[in-house]
Amino acid sequence: MSVSPFAEHTTRLTRALTTALVTERDDAALAARVAEIAAQMAAAAQDPEAVELADPHPVRAAFPHDITPVSSARNPIAPPLAIRREGEDSVATTVLPLQYQGPPTRVHGGIIALMLDQVLGDASSATGLPLSFTRELTITYDGATPIGEELRIAGRIRSVEGRKRFMEGEITVGGEVTVRAHGLWIAPREQSSAAASLQR
Amino acid sequence: MSVSPFAEHTTRLTRALTTALVTERDDAALAARVAEIAAQMAAAAQDPEAVELADPHPVRAAFPHDITPVSSARNPIAPPLAIRREGEDSVATTVLPLQYQGPPTRVHGGIIALMLDQVLGDASSATGLPLSFTRELTITYDGATPIGEELRIAGRIRSVEGRKRFMEGEITVGGEVTVRAHGLWIAPREQSSAAASLQR
Repeated sequence: MSVSPFAEHTTRLTRALTTALVTERDDAALAARVAEIAAQMAAAAQDPEAVELADPHPVRAAFPHDITPVSSARNPIAPPLAIRREGEDSVATTVLPLQYQGPPTRVHGGIIALMLDQVLGDASSATGLPLSFTRELTITYDGATPIGEELRIAGRIRSVEGRKRFMEGEITVGGEVTVRAHGLWIAPREQSSAAASLQR
Repeated sequence: MSVSPFAEHTTRLTRALTTALVTERDDAALAARVAEIAAQMAAAAQDPEAVELADPHPVRAAFPHDITPVSSARNPIAPPLAIRREGEDSVATTVLPLQYQGPPTRVHGGIIALMLDQVLGDASSATGLPLSFTRELTITYDGATPIGEELRIAGRIRSVEGRKRFMEGEITVGGEVTVRAHGLWIAPREQSSAAASLQR
């Protein structure tokens, strides 16, 4: 399974539009960029089957219909992260544009939490353990995490006790840790009763 | 100050496009919707000054150029939240569409953290205290927070010790708490040295 090239192409254009909206304060310049992107969208929509992408976002077999706002190739909110395994760790690298900014020049603290939640969640079930859900997540902001520079987001299992997985992770920029995370993920008693189990 | 009606109009169309991308799995149906939205964008871009909005998103005087991915009227990533004061609390209500989903039917845990970080941050400086930054944030997920239902996100100061503010908050759905949050926000020694202060 993979995301349709037309959907992914439209998603990329939507991300470009988002960047333009937060970057251009002058309406005339913004309008020119919007017209340009809208024309590209309309052209692709006229013949969606003709769209080809040389470099599609990697989609894991387990998540063919991934629409999460972190890793999906068809959700413009997602950077998107491509989460991979490196030994015991789940890891992603990304460079975030201006639409993810909080304080000037820095990634929004909540966007940092969003990425870490996804990467730690991935690590919690990556080793063949059943899917689990976040019960508690703590993010410690040690330093500035910059917009426009490469971030490395990593997470791993610290320990497992029955259905509980104690997770940890961090974001590093140029080898320096800027943010640390730890948390508890719990696997439902039965996979099918996930919703009921988490409602308590 | 307010956001330009053209920028806000384009942002709303971009959010509609995002919803379509995560909702329509059939490329033909998606292409029809993309063509429709692209035409509306192009029409507005031809004469941006003519765009009028009956119901602009409220923009606080202190944040005229707000581009955060939570509350900005011109950032399509933002729902957007309109954060208001209710007594001692900073409060926002919102209904989230499918692009904010994590597990099926539920809001992504990281999106929950994103909204709480913003609302607690707002509360940390809403009473005239200087602007402060998140040092640590803990989110506890007690139950399912649904997509498509009204969420109430609230935050307040629990205590202040010098430059430290201990914050707390929660999300409620139909009067039931689904998520709790607590954290530490710290005001920089001097407003102008915010970046340097947080780098340690």
